[in-house]
Amino acid sequence: MSGSTFGKILTVTTWGESHGQGVGAVVDGCPAGLEISEEYIQSFLDRRKPGQSEFATKRNEADAVKILSGVFEGKTTGTPISLVVYNTSQISKDYSNIKDVYRPGHADYTFSKKYGIRDYRGGGRSSGRETIGRVAAGAIAMRILEQFGIEIFAYVTQIGDIKADPQKFDKEEIRKNPLCMPDREAYVKASDYLKGLMEEKDSSGAKVECIVKGMPAGVGETVFDKLDARLAYAIMSIGAVKGVEIGDGFDVVNSRGSENNDEFYMSGDEVKKKTNHSGGILGGMSDGSDIVLRAAFKPTPSIYRKQSTVTEDGKEVEIEIKGRHDPIIAPRAVVVVEAMTALTIADLLLLDRSKDIY
Amino acid sequence: MSGSTFGKILTVTTWGESHGQGVGAVVDGCPAGLEISEEYIQSFLDRRKPGQSEFATKRNEADAVKILSGVFEGKTTGTPISLVVYNTSQISKDYSNIKDVYRPGHADYTFSKKYGIRDYRGGGRSSGRETIGRVAAGAIAMRILEQFGIEIFAYVTQIGDIKADPQKFDKEEIRKNPLCMPDREAYVKASDYLKGLMEEKDSSGAKVECIVKGMPAGVGETVFDKLDARLAYAIMSIGAVKGVEIGDGFDVVNSRGSENNDEFYMSGDEVKKKTNHSGGILGGMSDGSDIVLRAAFKPTPSIYRKQSTVTEDGKEVEIEIKGRHDPIIAPRAVVVVEAMTALTIADLLLLDRSKDIY
Amino acid sequence: MSGSTFGKILTVTTWGESHGQGVGAVVDGCPAGLEISEEYIQSFLDRRKPGQSEFATKRNEADAVKILSGVFEGKTTGTPISLVVYNTSQISKDYSNIKDVYRPGHADYTFSKKYGIRDYRGGGRSSGRETIGRVAAGAIAMRILEQFGIEIFAYVTQIGDIKADPQKFDKEEIRKNPLCMPDREAYVKASDYLKGLMEEKDSSGAKVECIVKGMPAGVGETVFDKLDARLAYAIMSIGAVKGVEIGDGFDVVNSRGSENNDEFYMSGDEVKKKTNHSGGILGGMSDGSDIVLRAAFKPTPSIYRKQSTVTEDGKEVEIEIKGRHDPIIAPRAVVVVEAMTALTIADLLLLDRSKDIY
Amino acid sequence: MSGSTFGKILTVTTWGESHGQGVGAVVDGCPAGLEISEEYIQSFLDRRKPGQSEFATKRNEADAVKILSGVFEGKTTGTPISLVVYNTSQISKDYSNIKDVYRPGHADYTFSKKYGIRDYRGGGRSSGRETIGRVAAGAIAMRILEQFGIEIFAYVTQIGDIKADPQKFDKEEIRKNPLCMPDREAYVKASDYLKGLMEEKDSSGAKVECIVKGMPAGVGETVFDKLDARLAYAIMSIGAVKGVEIGDGFDVVNSRGSENNDEFYMSGDEVKKKTNHSGGILGGMSDGSDIVLRAAFKPTPSIYRKQSTVTEDGKEVEIEIKGRHDPIIAPRAVVVVEAMTALTIADLLLLDRSKDIY
Repeated sequence: MSGSTFGKILTVTTWGESHGQGVGAVVDGCPAGLEISEEYIQSFLDRRKPGQSEFATKRNEADAVKILSGVFEGKTTGTPISLVVYNTSQISKDYSNIKDVYRPGHADYTFSKKYGIRDYRGGGRSSGRETIGRVAAGAIAMRILEQFGIEIFAYVTQIGDIKADPQKFDKEEIRKNPLCMPDREAYVKASDYLKGLMEEKDSSGAKVECIVKGMPAGVGETVFDKLDARLAYAIMSIGAVKGVEIGDGFDVVNSRGSENNDEFYMSGDEVKKKTNHSGGILGGMSDGSDIVLRAAFKPTPSIYRKQSTVTEDGKEVEIEIKGRHDPIIAPRAVVVVEAMTALTIADLLLLDRSKDIY
Repeated sequence: MSGSTFGKILTVTTWGESHGQGVGAVVDGCPAGLEISEEYIQSFLDRRKPGQSEFATKRNEADAVKILSGVFEGKTTGTPISLVVYNTSQISKDYSNIKDVYRPGHADYTFSKKYGIRDYRGGGRSSGRETIGRVAAGAIAMRILEQFGIEIFAYVTQIGDIKADPQKFDKEEIRKNPLCMPDREAYVKASDYLKGLMEEKDSSGAKVECIVKGMPAGVGETVFDKLDARLAYAIMSIGAVKGVEIGDGFDVVNSRGSENNDEFYMSGDEVKKKTNHSGGILGGMSDGSDIVLRAAFKPTPSIYRKQSTVTEDGKEVEIEIKGRHDPIIAPRAVVVVEAMTALTIADLLLLDRSKDIY
Repeated sequence: MSGSTFGKILTVTTWGESHGQGVGAVVDGCPAGLEISEEYIQSFLDRRKPGQSEFATKRNEADAVKILSGVFEGKTTGTPISLVVYNTSQISKDYSNIKDVYRPGHADYTFSKKYGIRDYRGGGRSSGRETIGRVAAGAIAMRILEQFGIEIFAYVTQIGDIKADPQKFDKEEIRKNPLCMPDREAYVKASDYLKGLMEEKDSSGAKVECIVKGMPAGVGETVFDKLDARLAYAIMSIGAVKGVEIGDGFDVVNSRGSENNDEFYMSGDEVKKKTNHSGGILGGMSDGSDIVLRAAFKPTPSIYRKQSTVTEDGKEVEIEIKGRHDPIIAPRAVVVVEAMTALTIADLLLLDRSKDIY
Repeated sequence: MSGSTFGKILTVTTWGESHGQGVGAVVDGCPAGLEISEEYIQSFLDRRKPGQSEFATKRNEADAVKILSGVFEGKTTGTPISLVVYNTSQISKDYSNIKDVYRPGHADYTFSKKYGIRDYRGGGRSSGRETIGRVAAGAIAMRILEQFGIEIFAYVTQIGDIKADPQKFDKEEIRKNPLCMPDREAYVKASDYLKGLMEEKDSSGAKVECIVKGMPAGVGETVFDKLDARLAYAIMSIGAVKGVEIGDGFDVVNSRGSENNDEFYMSGDEVKKKTNHSGGILGGMSDGSDIVLRAAFKPTPSIYRKQSTVTEDGKEVEIEIKGRHDPIIAPRAVVVVEAMTALTIADLLLLDRSKDIY
């Protein structure tokens, strides 16, 4: 495969399979002098760890990150930062029932068609463990963004048809409930909904929203490397994401110019917008308002129900996927959305510095 | 700016301002031996031309493409193909009313913040004319895809709250009505809706759907350069797009694993899927089904209504934007969506050939 | 083909065949606000023009550059700068004698093997006219470097075995003689040598040296994108170059550590080097001394002598190449070496700005 | 820093400091199905290991490579291959004498100017240990090249003024003597020369030549990404290289067109060249002859002699560099030259496959 490197100036190259030696990332282009420690990165990784609630798998993955290079006496030196999480709990189990079978909703079939060979253990490269490298790298991007006073946070706004009420948005609540919803009432309902699905051996999709605060205006490139285009690329590259929107997103279809245009006004010396239908991006560049993006996560494809499928040698069979599966992907992916957003914005911010040469 | 080049193997670099000397594109990495003529490319450009209906501006833009290099005796030689459309009808008019003013919903403000200088004539680089280079390059990508038996077509599925009925889908109809809708009844309703908006000096958003038929399985790279991620990047880079979805898109939020998983079955020797919720992409690779993507286009930001805004030197003013504006962007963007889809898929297909070395 | 784009932040994409519609370049990533005019760029192009001396072809190429985009009211706007030189004097002549024949020392054979098709008129894409795009883009890079107080100039130091004497180096002389040598005596000798070769229907190789003054320390990336590596790439990409060296170059083979190491000393507050064996680059980064590089240009492969070769369909034949050929490539390539050096350094300088975020 | 990734399709990203946790590489874009084992890669690494002769440092570096991903059941799966060599023998010693001092000929000064911070232990990122990642990745590239019947080997042709005699070229001899010279007599002389230098606490430069056999014609891209340009970039990116040449290299300066042109002839059905002055590359593409390149390696900058230099805080001092230093770099760099050549050619070969779509 190709395309395991993300970014232009701040780049991250990820590697690793679910049941290989480990998963990791190499972050290049990070400015020197930033404080980075294993503890700091671990705090991000811990948010995507399994086994933390009834809605997450019970695997006891330590997921302890090691920094192998690029940090000296607690600070980045400007050289590539190599990060690794060794696989410790991926016990060799019996894969005979899925080894030759294409699980519906998974990449087994496409992987076989592309390469002719695949590491069938736990999804291999297409496992959710692949996001560990993204999150570790995203933690470094966040450190860069701190220098610019930029803050990023994401949360789950919808599970099934249960929506968080924007009027009841409570940022503190996000980290208090295992579904990362910013509205406790919605969480309670969603929790019941998921329990019902688990009994039915089923899973649910969800919507994640991400906010970027403190964004300076003018970041992003005007044509192909628009800030929104790069964000769409970053977010859609997360496994299970089937849709991305910025600002009003798909609601613009049913909107009018007179509603959708954000009028400008002066707030002291500063240009401000009366509304933020644009989601903080105009013409591919940040407009100084909060960036607002949303991602649609499909339901976990691994379900306990019996499903029809085919084998590698073309036989129709039924499978029941054993093991431990989350009934929902989104809560553990919240930190992944934040990480990909941070990597995108940090990259374009660093690129933006090249324009000012006087 | 940066980021005016799209693609990794088949690359396109676009340039040009609305009221400069012209707009163009350089296509590199195109295989040799393909038949390409100005007439062929022109047939694509003509589909995005203004002045073709009551819903498109009346500007008499010839938009005649010239091939400056890379084609010899009617065939591509493998060298870069330089394409140009000279600006002929962009008569120098009086821009004094918008020269120093940030039009709401446009890139004027962000452009000023980024560069400190901008070509205010007709939107400059952020004009819709920028898409000419994309469409011309897309025509070349389509030629490559023909070799693989791949077909791409797009259409408008929704304008305001008027939706084309999938049951009445008529591919022939798409090119028969000026709104590019595949359902004549929906077109008639949407037409009335738009006329009403025009009277109200307003504009509408719309949804565009694009289908890729004949796609082989296994195209796309597994992690960052997933086929869907690259498509999201390509489509979101089109001005006015605020959302992109693949397959069931945002509907997955309210779906279950048991519904969303597409079960596999055998059709003779071939692996097929019973449904196509995935939109033809699994694990970032094509799965052999039709690729289905959708884009949300915001309403034309240039409206005749009076709007509040500010000037470059910080004064609050009201503007009325003169000139000719389409009440809707999407119909002229249909061919742009096709072009960006073609460029993305051709690029990943060519990349895919590198994997087979035996 | 691929690889028609050079650079990472400041990029140039070139296109065009010798006898097509024209040759050109698109420069992306150029900061806004720089003064650029057609006259300014033309002054660089005029230095590579043919027909200026007895050692250059008499073709009357106007080579007049047009700026098609990216410059507004005399200044760069930050958007891509499209530059074109239309081919005007490439009169359609009879190519029947070389159309199917592989000229020795030329790219005819390799081009045929790679693409199966080629534009045989005047070398097509492999013509020396391809360098027009490089020089035009290099002029823009020079404007960027001026902001940093950086100056670049090149000259011919050796033709056959006639060497310019470093003791007699006279910078003014470089532009006074048509061989661009910095030592008048050497020029006179080389001139006689070349006249003799012309009588023998032969051609000569030459060495070009390039100096970069005013270079700040620390530019260049430590591992693969070392400043010297990127310069070697840039210079070796010029047709006819067969060798590149930095500082002492190949003389280091016969040197010792005690000689080759440049000792540091203090000059007031500044760190200086007693010598400059390194050619201004240590560990891939500029060390604050002048950058010194050298390129070896092979003799013009087009000679009037009869040569043995083969045809496309495998017949052994003898050819005499008609037309006008320079007996030496290097003097007209001096400005190309400067251009590629400027593009490389400007790109790395802009990249270097991304590292300072505090 | 940036630029730690090399290649376009077959990419390698390296990381690691001399005295950090380890050094490594991530290889992406490698086709699936190739046999790769730790033993195989180790056999390449062992050739650059120190402590193997009297001319190489006595450090007992195990340099044992581990494959962390991308290989399953002995074969590549198409996913990124993560390779690591943990630093085991880099015992923490006293660096107080060089910690604040800029060693002449080293990157200490430039590193400090660029980043303001540096890992001074053993050269940090600029250590020769950085080449471990290159060699490990190069071993994988060699596996790809085997599929195409391509062989690459390099050797030392000159040390000081002692040259291997091309008439006495003995390929077997290269791996028999610790200086990797293909001529035993030259080796014996060079050996004496080096012993003398060691007594004088000095070091020597050297020249390395690399041959690529079995190269198909037409590989390389015509303008910037010429095969020779990419090779020059690859080879010059190796620390200590100050010059690169292809074919006749700098000798072309004193050559004539009638000598330098390689005439074509037919050998059965095949086009052949009577000579190989071009070094196997014409117009940036391989011409089917052996590729011949040469690199000039500077003398080891670490010498035991007292040298004048300055400290970070601007004091002039004298230093004697302790530790174990090789009196010559080139013999251990032979395998690095091979690796960089292999990576370059494999990358362009894979790219070349994208051109054939019929």
